[in-house]
Order: sequence, then C-alpha cells, then structure tokens
Amino acid sequence: MGADSAESLMESAPVVAVDANGADLGPAEVAAAANAAAEQGVRVLLFGPAAQLPPLAPGVRLVDAPESVAKSADPVRAVREHPNASIVAAARAVAGGQAQALVCAGGTGAALAAGLFNIKRARGIHRPALALPLPIPGCPAPVTLLDVGANAHARPEHLVQFAFMGAAFAQAVLGIEQPRVGLLSNGEEAERGGDIVVAAHAQLTAMLAERSDGPAPLRFVGNVEGTDVTDGAADVVVTDGLTGNVSLKLIEGVSSTVLSAIRDAAMQSARARVGGLLLRRSLRAFRASIDPESQGGAYLLGLRGLAVVPHGRFASPGFTAAILRARRGVDTDVVGRTHAALAAAGALRASPVRASR
Amino acid sequence: MGADSAESLMESAPVVAVDANGADLGPAEVAAAANAAAEQGVRVLLFGPAAQLPPLAPGVRLVDAPESVAKSADPVRAVREHPNASIVAAARAVAGGQAQALVCAGGTGAALAAGLFNIKRARGIHRPALALPLPIPGCPAPVTLLDVGANAHARPEHLVQFAFMGAAFAQAVLGIEQPRVGLLSNGEEAERGGDIVVAAHAQLTAMLAERSDGPAPLRFVGNVEGTDVTDGAADVVVTDGLTGNVSLKLIEGVSSTVLSAIRDAAMQSARARVGGLLLRRSLRAFRASIDPESQGGAYLLGLRGLAVVPHGRFASPGFTAAILRARRGVDTDVVGRTHAALAAAGALRASPVRASR
Repeated sequence: MGADSAESLMESAPVVAVDANGADLGPAEVAAAANAAAEQGVRVLLFGPAAQLPPLAPGVRLVDAPESVAKSADPVRAVREHPNASIVAAARAVAGGQAQALVCAGGTGAALAAGLFNIKRARGIHRPALALPLPIPGCPAPVTLLDVGANAHARPEHLVQFAFMGAAFAQAVLGIEQPRVGLLSNGEEAERGGDIVVAAHAQLTAMLAERSDGPAPLRFVGNVEGTDVTDGAADVVVTDGLTGNVSLKLIEGVSSTVLSAIRDAAMQSARARVGGLLLRRSLRAFRASIDPESQGGAYLLGLRGLAVVPHGRFASPGFTAAILRARRGVDTDVVGRTHAALAAAGALRASPVRASR
Repeated sequence: MGADSAESLMESAPVVAVDANGADLGPAEVAAAANAAAEQGVRVLLFGPAAQLPPLAPGVRLVDAPESVAKSADPVRAVREHPNASIVAAARAVAGGQAQALVCAGGTGAALAAGLFNIKRARGIHRPALALPLPIPGCPAPVTLLDVGANAHARPEHLVQFAFMGAAFAQAVLGIEQPRVGLLSNGEEAERGGDIVVAAHAQLTAMLAERSDGPAPLRFVGNVEGTDVTDGAADVVVTDGLTGNVSLKLIEGVSSTVLSAIRDAAMQSARARVGGLLLRRSLRAFRASIDPESQGGAYLLGLRGLAVVPHGRFASPGFTAAILRARRGVDTDVVGRTHAALAAAGALRASPVRASR
C-alpha cells in the first residue's frame, strides 16, 4: 500500500479479490487491470503467479498463487482438488473477510464452484444465478438478463427467485424503483413456454397477489419474447442458464454481424464508401456503447458475498471494468439488498428447521 | 382455373392449400398473395371467407370457409372442436390428396394441431419441428434453426431426430451436401448444456460412429454457442422450441434494433446525416436480405405432408413467399427425403409392433 495521506481512508475502503489466472491474454493483463483500478481508488488483493506479473501499483497487494484451474475440463472437481489454485484462494479471501468481493474469469463453472464451496450460498437461496445488465440502444437503462449460464436448467422455484433477485439487483445497482420483470418464453400468453415457465408464471403471479404490505418490489409483466428483450418491454428478463447464455451470445453475435455487414455495405460503391467515412465516428460511439467488454462482466448473485465474472477473452480494460463493477456492487450492498428483497417477498427457501415445524 | 393453353400442364402441378384466416391484415391480404403466387405458376386451393375476398386469379380455387380459429386462446381444443375452420379444412385437403402442401399462419399451436390431427405425424417421428432457414450476412447459405417453436421442451431423442431432419432438409432444400449440424448449448464442451443436451450429444455421436455404410448424412460439429449461429459454424442448429423461438426472435429483434440505432446515429450531426444518405441504398439492400418476411416462414417437418407457417404479421409478399416456399418444398420432396434420411440413419422411432418383438 502507498504511504500517502489517503491511506487511512483507503484502509476502510472495500477490497476486491481478483484471480489473475483465467484471462486468455494471461495474468499480466489482469495485473495491469488491477493497477488501473487501484488508480481509481479500489483496493485489490491479487491472486496469481508472482513470477509472471509486472510491478504493481500501491493499492494492489499480491498473494502468490501460481496454480491455475482455468483450463480444466472438470472445473468443479478441479476447484475441489486444488485448494491453492488462485481462484479458490481468492474466493477464500472473500469468505474470510480479507476482501468483500471476488472477480474471476476463466469459466463460469470454476467461478460457481469456487463461490459455492468457499463464499457459500446465501441462506434460503436455491441456486446462484449469473445476472448481466445489457445495454440496449434506445433504452434509458440496461436490461438485466439472468441466468446467463450458472446452471443450464432451472425449476420453477428457481425462476421465481431469479425474478426477485434480478429486481432487487436492478433496484440496487441500476436505480430502477419498481423493475418490470418478464419471463422469457416462446409466446406472451401465460400458457406458453412449457411446464417450467408456466409453473413459474403461476407461482410469481400468486406470490404478488398475496402481498398486502407496501408496494410490490417488482412489476411482473408476464411472458416476454425474444423481440421484447431489445424492445425494452422489461427491465429484468428471467430464464434458465441455457436459454440465457444462448440469448446473451446471440445478442453479441448478431450485433457484431450486423455491424460488420454494414461495414461491408459501406465498401460496395464509391458513394457508400464516402457515406461510411462520414458515419464512422457515430458508429464507433455506438459500437463502444454495446461492447460487452466495457460493461465488465456478469454478477454472480445468491452467494454470501459478491462475485463478478468477466469473460476470459477480455483485455485489461474489461478486467478493470469488472473490478470497478465489483467495488460498486459492494458500495451499493447488492448482496444484502438482494437478500432482504427476497426475504420481504417470501421468496427464500424455508430452512430445514422451519420446514419441519 | 383459366382455360388457357397452359391448363393441361397446370393440372399436373402440385397444389398448395392456403388458409386465408390467420393474417393480422385479414383474409384479403392472403388472397392477394395467392393471386401473386398463381401468376408464378402455383396452383392454390384457398380456404377462407368468400364474402371478404377480392376476385381471384385463374389458378386459385376458393373453398368458402369463413370460420376461423386463428385468435383462439386454446388452439388445440379449437382445432379439435371446429372441423369446418379454414385451417382444419385446408389441412384435410392435404391429407385427402387435393393439395400437396399447407400454408397457414395465425399461430404455431393451431398449425401444429391441424397438421397432427389431419395430415398426421409421419411414421417413426416423435414430434414435428419447425425449421427456419435464416439468412446470415456473410454466409453463403442460410443456417437452418430448429425447433423454432413447435414444442417448448424436447427430450434427447427428439433433438437427435431434429438433427437428422434438419440435415435432410438442408440437403434437399438448400443443396448442402453433408450439412454440419450443431447442438445449441451454453458451452462448446460435450458436458455443457444440461442433461438433455448432454444426452443428445452422446446419442448422436454414438449413432454416427456406428454407421458403416456410405458417407454420413451429416457432420456433427458438437455443441455450438449463440455466437456460433451467426459465425456460420454450423449449417443446421438444433435446439428445443423454447430456446429456438427465443433465439429466432432475438436475431430479428437485435438486427432491427442495431439498424435503428445506426439510423439514429446518422441523424446526430450534419456530417453523419450526409453519410447516412450516401449509405442508404446499400443499407436498404442489406435490410431486405435479412427481412424475415422475404423468406416466407418456417417449415413444419415430421408430418406426412409439408406445411409452411408464415408469421401472422406478414403482408401479402410474405404470404406469397410462403406459398412459393411450400411449392418448392413439394418439388424437392422435402417430406420424402427427410423421412428417407431418418430411416437410413436409424433415427426413426421403432413402431409398437417392432418394439414388441
């Protein structure tokens, strides 16, 4: 840590534990991100191979953890069998209170396993979910999609919890007072979407109808279709991890394909080429506004501490954004507020003791 | 029918049964489409409300069927209880041999029910699937996505049949010799995607490995992610109807949102405005190339006859494209070739008699 006058202030600031292994571009890329985040006042506890890292900024403390499970084919087993792996050590730091949030790339499976085994599932939560606020052109606030890949399948009660978790998240982080929540389906009617979506629709409707105290924490807009996601029909879109992950990657893929096609169209004639040149600056700004890397990654919700999961292919700015996102999540108490909202909504799973009464 | 010299030729041409009820814009819109298709040599048997229809071209024969189940909340029941509804009568015409293919909009549920109850499921087929060839900018051939919404859920054996059905379709209609088939998943590894996708992956791999006679009808490229759909990683992408329908509508929604955002970007400055004007012609061509309406709708595969399902919001050119698509499907014997491919691959369900041996 630097010995400057801000040190006493810094000591009370939250610490973000960062796994340096897991970036496709290597640990030095993550270290550079940690340095950049520290310059913006974030305290970072960096877990990675000391021998491969550049000099670190004041505000970044290194824990030498050369072992990586990022490329493992069986991440759950790898996390279990390698207690000294950097991602496991970083998660342990959050569990032990040395850090208040975790940032780790290198696979959702490893992040989920390290989080579940060390930070632990929050009380009453069926399953954690990965939530991603997606910037949508023309929408004033991002649309939060969850689950984008923590678990492929979901049962109805999982989707119901995701609805309340996503709404609490959108309120805490995005400042949306009473988020509109939709269930992603293949039709808007309540009977569409198959058994699981239909049951979740019914449960959510019943829970909201039973409420008597105060304003509802969310407004359930029913089923939403794929086109509704970009139409801004809901602030929070709930689905299972398979459909959510496919959706997320389609949004990225289609955006990028359309932009490339427009670039190609702007090469087809002299006239179009001039047009493309004149439009270039506006298009660059648009491209940046929807760039997933500038967002920093998805929030893993439902643990006792916060985790942010950037994409392994991100370069250092993407990891910096992830660390800042984690810091902001701690500042806004995403974990506490999400849990309180679930409790207030009666959406927590009854504990074994209560269930046996 | 017109009494011109082409009449004898016309008599041997396939007939397409078209339900005129089901277009959001009304039956006259579908009648106009039938007229346009007839001008291109297709014989149409049109089922709809005679009182509401404009004069019909030679080549279009009208069956007065004013009753519609297009707006029914329970399409399966509506189809069952209204044998004179236009969609049911049109499906019966295919079953009875008066027509060789069906075109009907107004809801997947009604199309599926009318098809199953009248045209009937083909022998050995677990379930029909809706297949849609999607034009992808930069790809030489469309990517066929199935199921885009016939059934929300799918079991592993359904996905395996969809793989062979989709491949046979891509070969027959799109001329792709040995289509590359992928399973849509939340990761490329064989263990990703949840129980159902994992089991389908294993079954498909085993079936292809067991083959000894001749070249395989498809090349299984394993799991594909959302980004792979627009990257052209597979010619056929297989998934259940929930994820497939969401994917299809996300592709439409995101394409349209990005194009709108670019139009907005082209209004931000005088410089950008000039650029937008110069690019307009190229962008219009691009927009047309990915317009779902120009494609004509999805193919309902797995029945004893072909059905094409356009979107209810299509205007007359979209319905014309659907009728031409149905005619082409008859000409290329999509139904026969798909079934033969499934039989050759050993992917047909054993009949009760065979199963009891």
